[in-house]
Formats: sequence, C-alpha cells, structure tokens
Amino acid sequence: MRTLFHHPLSPFSRLARVALAEKELPFESQVEKPWERRDIFLALNPAAEVPVLVEADGTVVAGGWAVLEYLEEAYPDTPLLPREVAQRAEVRRLLAWFLAKFDREVTDNLVGEKMLRRLSGHGYPSAPAIRAGLANIHYHLDYIAFLAERRPWLAGAGFTLADAAAAAQLSCVDYVGDVPWDEHPEAKDWYARIKSRPSFRNILADNIPGCPPPKHYADLDF
Amino acid sequence: MRTLFHHPLSPFSRLARVALAEKELPFESQVEKPWERRDIFLALNPAAEVPVLVEADGTVVAGGWAVLEYLEEAYPDTPLLPREVAQRAEVRRLLAWFLAKFDREVTDNLVGEKMLRRLSGHGYPSAPAIRAGLANIHYHLDYIAFLAERRPWLAGAGFTLADAAAAAQLSCVDYVGDVPWDEHPEAKDWYARIKSRPSFRNILADNIPGCPPPKHYADLDF
Repeated sequence: MRTLFHHPLSPFSRLARVALAEKELPFESQVEKPWERRDIFLALNPAAEVPVLVEADGTVVAGGWAVLEYLEEAYPDTPLLPREVAQRAEVRRLLAWFLAKFDREVTDNLVGEKMLRRLSGHGYPSAPAIRAGLANIHYHLDYIAFLAERRPWLAGAGFTLADAAAAAQLSCVDYVGDVPWDEHPEAKDWYARIKSRPSFRNILADNIPGCPPPKHYADLDF
Repeated sequence: MRTLFHHPLSPFSRLARVALAEKELPFESQVEKPWERRDIFLALNPAAEVPVLVEADGTVVAGGWAVLEYLEEAYPDTPLLPREVAQRAEVRRLLAWFLAKFDREVTDNLVGEKMLRRLSGHGYPSAPAIRAGLANIHYHLDYIAFLAERRPWLAGAGFTLADAAAAAQLSCVDYVGDVPWDEHPEAKDWYARIKSRPSFRNILADNIPGCPPPKHYADLDF
C-alpha cells in the first residue's frame, strides 16, 4: 500500500493529500511529527521534512516539491498541471508564491507561532511575528482576488496545483481562525469553490487532538 | 533574444545561468537588484524575485523553480534531470535540500548578512546569524562528502541539477570567502570537478563592483 507521511499543519503535506485525492490514488495516512526526528523517518528523508511518499514497491519520494512533480510524472491521468509549457511555468510561479512566499510571510507567523511552537515545545509565540502574519495575509488575499477576477482559476482556465497550494496554505491558517474572510469576499468565493471539491473533504475533516478547529472551518457555507 | 534577469549573489539565479549554459542556450544577461522593486521588473514577477527568464517570443518564466522545470521541458536535449521518475524525485529532493534548507541555514546567514544587507541598505549584519551560518556549513559539506563518496555525482550516476544547485549555493558563500574547503577535502574534490565545467566559467568570472571575490574564488586549483 502507498503511504504518505504528513502532518495536518504542514501546508505542503495538505497539498500532497489534495493532489493524491484529485488523482484518486488511495494511500495510507501516517501522521508524522517531524520535530520528533524519529530514526525511521530520518532514514526516509534526512531533511526531516514532511511530506514523504512511500510507494507500494518501496520507492521513496521525499519532500513536497519532489512529491508534487513525481505525482504528475508517475500518474499523468487527471493532470494538475496544464499541458503547455508556458502555462506550466505560470502554475509553478504561483506554487513558489504560495509555498515559499505566503508560507514565510503568513503561515509561519501564524500557524508556526500559535500552534507548532506549542506542539513541538519550542519556545513561546512571538507577538511581533503574529502581528506581521495578520497584516501580511490581507495582501495575499487581495492577490488571490486579483487573479480570481481575471481567470476561472488562479493560474488560468482549469483547477491546478496553484489553486491547491493556495488553498492548502489558507486552510492551515483557517484552522487557527486567522483568515479574515469577511473582508475579502472574492477570495472567499474562490475558497468556497475549493471547499466543495471532493479532494478537499479529508482536509476539512482534520482535527488535531487538543486543538480543534473553529466551527466555520469545515463549513461549506462559512 | 532570450534575456535572463538575475543577480550574481542569488543562488537560484546562478543555478539558472548554469542550466542555460549546460544546455548551450545563449541569453542576454540583465543584472537585477530585486530590492529596488523596479516597476518593469515587478510587471515580470510580482514576487520581485530573481531569476526571471524572458524568451525571444515574449514568454515570461518567473521564479527559480519555474525556470528550472521550464528549461527541462522546453529544451529536453542535454537533460539535467535523469529519465526515470524515481531518480528525478531524488534530484528534486536534493534541489529542495540545497535551494531551501542550505539557503536558510547557510547562505542567508552569510551572504545575506554580509553582502545583501549592505548592498540593499537594509540594516546591519547580525553577528549571531553569521555565527550560525559558519557553524551550519560544516554539516552541509559533510552531507556533500557523504553523497560524493557513494555516487559519481550527488544524485547518482550523472551530473544533474542537484550538483548545479549545491554548487550555486557554495559558489555564493565562496564569494564571501566563508567555505572552509581545507576541512572538507571530499566536498572540495567534488567542487573542483564542478569548477572545471565550461558551464561554470561564467559564474567564476562574477565580479561585483566594489565587492571583489577572494583570490581563490575563480582558481581551479584552490
């Protein structure tokens, strides 16, 4: 059986779960706390980062970028990248935007400070970091609105990894209740479309013991 | 004519230059200081990050990840990724290692603090950050040695983007004279092989006005 080592508060892990679900590839879910640095996990990925995909034949695919591109190459049916190279480049530009820039400017400052510090036992939340995250998220929601007004989906005509990546980040921040949806109706409309996709059901069912999500988190009419 | 917007102290930019040179794709070099946030550059990449590739037909490929995968897809001759999907995943695991982890743990702390702060006029170097970078680099050089002892090149039998990415990072740190080569002979041997590649000549010729590299930087026998 295919196994995915992941963590519910890792956006890259959520993106891998959505990609697997979009491609209808069944997998066994193995929640990994990367900060525990378990030997068995380090042997799979010496960088100690989730997600890691282990195929039934033992093939190990370690790290978020590798997993995404691997899934596209190994399972080209139900593609999550467009066919044309320039359009694929546009999806990857947005992947870097959401997986690196949004992560650094928003998710690290909110989910990282409020949740991961506590869960991993690494210090106390930094109030300036949280303030920065709460300020930065507006600019990113504006950018999503800007794109969603001009295109059916963020990168163009079809749903792609760019939408899945943006939604993976936002769903993590939404889990801690820090997405100001009411101030960003266009971004909210786009996210409502994502929430109703079958591939997102599993994400909306996430419930970390001792840290439940806010009530609106899984609500399709939020 | 193809144009690459890049900066000599951006590892991702150096990697794009090496990839273009390996594929023997001529390009016009446009040095961009991303912190100046020029309107014309923001129009190409709203994330204000180098590299950005603009093809002769006007196609814009923005951001390091997008450029690398685009070059592989658009110019498959002289591939810099192996053919087999699991081996491609291994290259991408190492790409993430060097482009994200090494960058965060080493290059940001050394090149970022010592050079980019000064060039961009953003504050003063942080002594604790520099100490962290100088400590962290040993572990990464050990990892390069570990890989180079077991495989002809870092990701396997052939030279790939993984070697180019590791060398792009190390060449930036070497530019500020902070690579302790003498303590890491195996990593040094691997880097000597990289330095002698024609695709690396242009990197070794880098010379930032007012900030020349140390004497050994371009020396093949360093």
